[in-house]
Amino acid sequence: MSDANSTPVGFIGLGNMGGPMAINLAKAGYPVKAFDLSADACKKVAEGGATIAASAADAVKGAKIVVSMLPASRHVEGLYLGDKGLLALLEPGTLVLDSSTIAPVSARKVAEAATARGLEFLDAPVSGGTAGAAAGTLTFMVGGDTAVLERATPLIKSMGANIFHAGGHGAGQGAKLCNNMLLAILMIGTSEALSLGKSLGLDPKVLSEVMRRSSGGNWTLEKYNPVPGVMEGVPASRGYTGGFGTDLMLKDVGLALEAALGSGACVPLGGLARELYASHSKAGHGGLDFSSIIGLINPQP
Amino acid sequence: MSDANSTPVGFIGLGNMGGPMAINLAKAGYPVKAFDLSADACKKVAEGGATIAASAADAVKGAKIVVSMLPASRHVEGLYLGDKGLLALLEPGTLVLDSSTIAPVSARKVAEAATARGLEFLDAPVSGGTAGAAAGTLTFMVGGDTAVLERATPLIKSMGANIFHAGGHGAGQGAKLCNNMLLAILMIGTSEALSLGKSLGLDPKVLSEVMRRSSGGNWTLEKYNPVPGVMEGVPASRGYTGGFGTDLMLKDVGLALEAALGSGACVPLGGLARELYASHSKAGHGGLDFSSIIGLINPQP
Amino acid sequence: MSDANSTPVGFIGLGNMGGPMAINLAKAGYPVKAFDLSADACKKVAEGGATIAASAADAVKGAKIVVSMLPASRHVEGLYLGDKGLLALLEPGTLVLDSSTIAPVSARKVAEAATARGLEFLDAPVSGGTAGAAAGTLTFMVGGDTAVLERATPLIKSMGANIFHAGGHGAGQGAKLCNNMLLAILMIGTSEALSLGKSLGLDPKVLSEVMRRSSGGNWTLEKYNPVPGVMEGVPASRGYTGGFGTDLMLKDVGLALEAALGSGACVPLGGLARELYASHSKAGHGGLDFSSIIGLINPQP
Amino acid sequence: MSDANSTPVGFIGLGNMGGPMAINLAKAGYPVKAFDLSADACKKVAEGGATIAASAADAVKGAKIVVSMLPASRHVEGLYLGDKGLLALLEPGTLVLDSSTIAPVSARKVAEAATARGLEFLDAPVSGGTAGAAAGTLTFMVGGDTAVLERATPLIKSMGANIFHAGGHGAGQGAKLCNNMLLAILMIGTSEALSLGKSLGLDPKVLSEVMRRSSGGNWTLEKYNPVPGVMEGVPASRGYTGGFGTDLMLKDVGLALEAALGSGACVPLGGLARELYASHSKAGHGGLDFSSIIGLINPQP
Repeated sequence: MSDANSTPVGFIGLGNMGGPMAINLAKAGYPVKAFDLSADACKKVAEGGATIAASAADAVKGAKIVVSMLPASRHVEGLYLGDKGLLALLEPGTLVLDSSTIAPVSARKVAEAATARGLEFLDAPVSGGTAGAAAGTLTFMVGGDTAVLERATPLIKSMGANIFHAGGHGAGQGAKLCNNMLLAILMIGTSEALSLGKSLGLDPKVLSEVMRRSSGGNWTLEKYNPVPGVMEGVPASRGYTGGFGTDLMLKDVGLALEAALGSGACVPLGGLARELYASHSKAGHGGLDFSSIIGLINPQP
Repeated sequence: MSDANSTPVGFIGLGNMGGPMAINLAKAGYPVKAFDLSADACKKVAEGGATIAASAADAVKGAKIVVSMLPASRHVEGLYLGDKGLLALLEPGTLVLDSSTIAPVSARKVAEAATARGLEFLDAPVSGGTAGAAAGTLTFMVGGDTAVLERATPLIKSMGANIFHAGGHGAGQGAKLCNNMLLAILMIGTSEALSLGKSLGLDPKVLSEVMRRSSGGNWTLEKYNPVPGVMEGVPASRGYTGGFGTDLMLKDVGLALEAALGSGACVPLGGLARELYASHSKAGHGGLDFSSIIGLINPQP
Repeated sequence: MSDANSTPVGFIGLGNMGGPMAINLAKAGYPVKAFDLSADACKKVAEGGATIAASAADAVKGAKIVVSMLPASRHVEGLYLGDKGLLALLEPGTLVLDSSTIAPVSARKVAEAATARGLEFLDAPVSGGTAGAAAGTLTFMVGGDTAVLERATPLIKSMGANIFHAGGHGAGQGAKLCNNMLLAILMIGTSEALSLGKSLGLDPKVLSEVMRRSSGGNWTLEKYNPVPGVMEGVPASRGYTGGFGTDLMLKDVGLALEAALGSGACVPLGGLARELYASHSKAGHGGLDFSSIIGLINPQP
Repeated sequence: MSDANSTPVGFIGLGNMGGPMAINLAKAGYPVKAFDLSADACKKVAEGGATIAASAADAVKGAKIVVSMLPASRHVEGLYLGDKGLLALLEPGTLVLDSSTIAPVSARKVAEAATARGLEFLDAPVSGGTAGAAAGTLTFMVGGDTAVLERATPLIKSMGANIFHAGGHGAGQGAKLCNNMLLAILMIGTSEALSLGKSLGLDPKVLSEVMRRSSGGNWTLEKYNPVPGVMEGVPASRGYTGGFGTDLMLKDVGLALEAALGSGACVPLGGLARELYASHSKAGHGGLDFSSIIGLINPQP
């Protein structure tokens, strides 16, 4: 891929998601200079073919595209904004693609600062988990200009399988929060329906199949059934390990709720879902897959 | 269809659902004797090819299969049970198929009384609405013995397109309640996600498409989008008329909650959904399609 | 008390509440004939001064007043109604006082049957717990005619300290359900406020005092603080033992919700409270005092 | 009051609450220099005895105590922090008392900046509404050092009747948010109980009195009954005008929820209360007293 070969990439944030993403870029032929505060994280990515930089500033020196994957809004704002932020160091025309899941208002703040400096910005949070990051099959929800997204598409395709253009700056983050709040609701609602069914004597496998093919059909019944033994290869069938952790879901629903507080939106089921995941996390299950929330509904699903 | 021609059917309850169902049986060749307290309802069904009986008892005289479609548990129990109930009049071996949506405990009560008298019973509530009843494309969720369901299958196929065997007596009602409680949640959750998205500047059409193809995917995004203008031919695009009324959904979620109270099941989102539909109904919207619940979340969706 | 000496009382149901109530009547001088299916329960009440009858029918023979204290609607209906029910055995003019906590519709059904037979009926559920029953300091919420309540007042005063006349037949049960649903909400709401305060660094004792004297003031802050160590002599300060069990509260809120389903009332916080107590009970805490619900909100209050 | 006569006060923010508070200080003899962006607001306060300053900076020049009463966190942070903020202008030892209702984290941020500059800080939000502000009967919930609060007490007493010392910096805001979240719950819970009671045939006056004196007792039943006609002189008895607006309650519960998101606290009823007030506000009732929320539960209370 000639594009890859000629486009230097700076990559900041090499955790469970960012690490495999940076490696996939390197494997696709991009010259990647990467940085993370953790030496271990850097080592793995070096083994995967990237060059390790001495600092974030060093990583983006000479880069045409900068990718970041950080834990929260404050890290992203801290990285890019202010007199010592990265935006001040980049050449005009550089494309900044932030794949962190953060507040839409933070994404827009960074986008505005980038635009003011003649840079291009995309907010591009992902779904698909660590498995998707490793396999390069992530889904990207992108906010920003169409032309900029076109420019970034080859690079994104090296890390993911699906790209949704959700709208202007911040829309990628907005779409992800809306989707994940809805997913949080689907998982609890499905858990309730299956638990109610069981209490009425229904077989969870049979009921799952009936609802999946009826008007109760939803992604969790298709791909991620929360009752152990109903579906192979899902967290419920391996003790709720792997998958998407309760605390990560709690973070995302918290961001959705924060956005709703800011915009005045009304989200009764989303709000309640947040509290149920919070209770579940406080009971010590924050590290289990989020489908373990069925245990709050029914301890013996 | 020789089976149809030789099997006399008694049909009780000729309302918006039962009327078209009885007509479809008559059109399929079944000799149908039908009864309803409403003379108007009887007249329509007579025009559709059924014979009108003078009473419920008269309708089932000589019937091999009895079908009923009534509003609530008390009507079904009142029709079949007690010294003057229909069960006391039927020949041993007669098959009773109740398609009303009622409490699973009521269905089991009638099933036990029927079994004690040597009759066969299926609880077989439907989904698909009045349009599905007229077109003969209803979905049946059936509780009862496999052999009995096989016997009833040709008759059911004359009224519907899909049959799910959910389990033993009462399981048809149980499956319908679980499914509809989940649907009630999906509709509100989807409404919240789309309203939150709009408040963040996202286009409902774009966001609907993103979530439909992502982990927020569910039946309401596939078939029944609650935002006006996003999808053609759905209630949201014709002022929330037609479709499945808020008060009907309120009744079904109420039955699910009643079942949960009886079995001790925990249904936080389902319980909250009931209260939101109740508030919406009290505000005067009980006659609108249930997707109008988005108006409680956001008056200008 | 001359009234007591001359008024034979039949008492049915000698459990943790009914037993001490019957004994208090006997101590006040009433000739009490009592019955319970449990021989142990009967023995304790015999030691307390009542005569033990061979059956419920025997207990009410010759009684001018009948008192019952049973677990649920079906027991009360089963005791009084039908051809073999107690109502058929009582002399016209006999006063029936049912202190069980049951559905208002059940209370009204028994009241109507009693009235039809020339009997007088009061629904008179109590609050105050087993300690109040033993001390004779219960609160009675009474439904029925004023004149009938006046007739019953001396007897009630032998068992309780407060009498509220809530309205006609069924109003006693209605008032109790409304009150207990509200109490269920107060306890969770107070637990949330104190847990949120703690997470913000506030001292639960100080915050309790501030809110108690402000617009957050409520009965739980006055009498029944859920945080261990804030208040002496309450369940929270002895491992949530004693008091009013989670499963009893779950039963009462369930009755309130059942009543709301029947009357079409909208109860969002009450409905959610039911689900939270249900989750708490399913997690194994049904036997702990209901103030232990704070553990669902915050495991280390 | 000699203290008052000798202590120059700078007062920023002269809205519906701040205006009467500033006037009460002037009436108590404090030399008050006040400022607000609204000329109208300044005029009223000038008529009440205060001197109007040309700017916020001018108002605090020479002040020993600075009082502020602003709408939201961003205004308070904007006023005090940064190179051009007021903290940079004040003499060491000056006492800053902020009576705005804001996020506890914002209060702590300002407190830390003040402390770093040798200033003293109290967060001191109030309750009691505009009537309490005018009458000088506000309740202050104060966070900060005991000695500082003692120093401020005479000044506070000129504006209010009750002072609660809730803890260190931020604890005043924390206590207010916890209290108001609880109040938000009490109002909805009480509305539900009274609406359920009415649907069961109970008289709201009688039921209110029964619950007020029982374990359902709470501030709203004592002082602020939401059913029209039950209590004189409350908003419910004058068309829900006056009082504490729905949108103000929505703001406070939003702050509580934001604090819970930040600290990880679990607040299911508080979270649901926020959504119900949000729905009520979106339906066009944001300007009505918050007890009008009963209309969402039952349109004809």
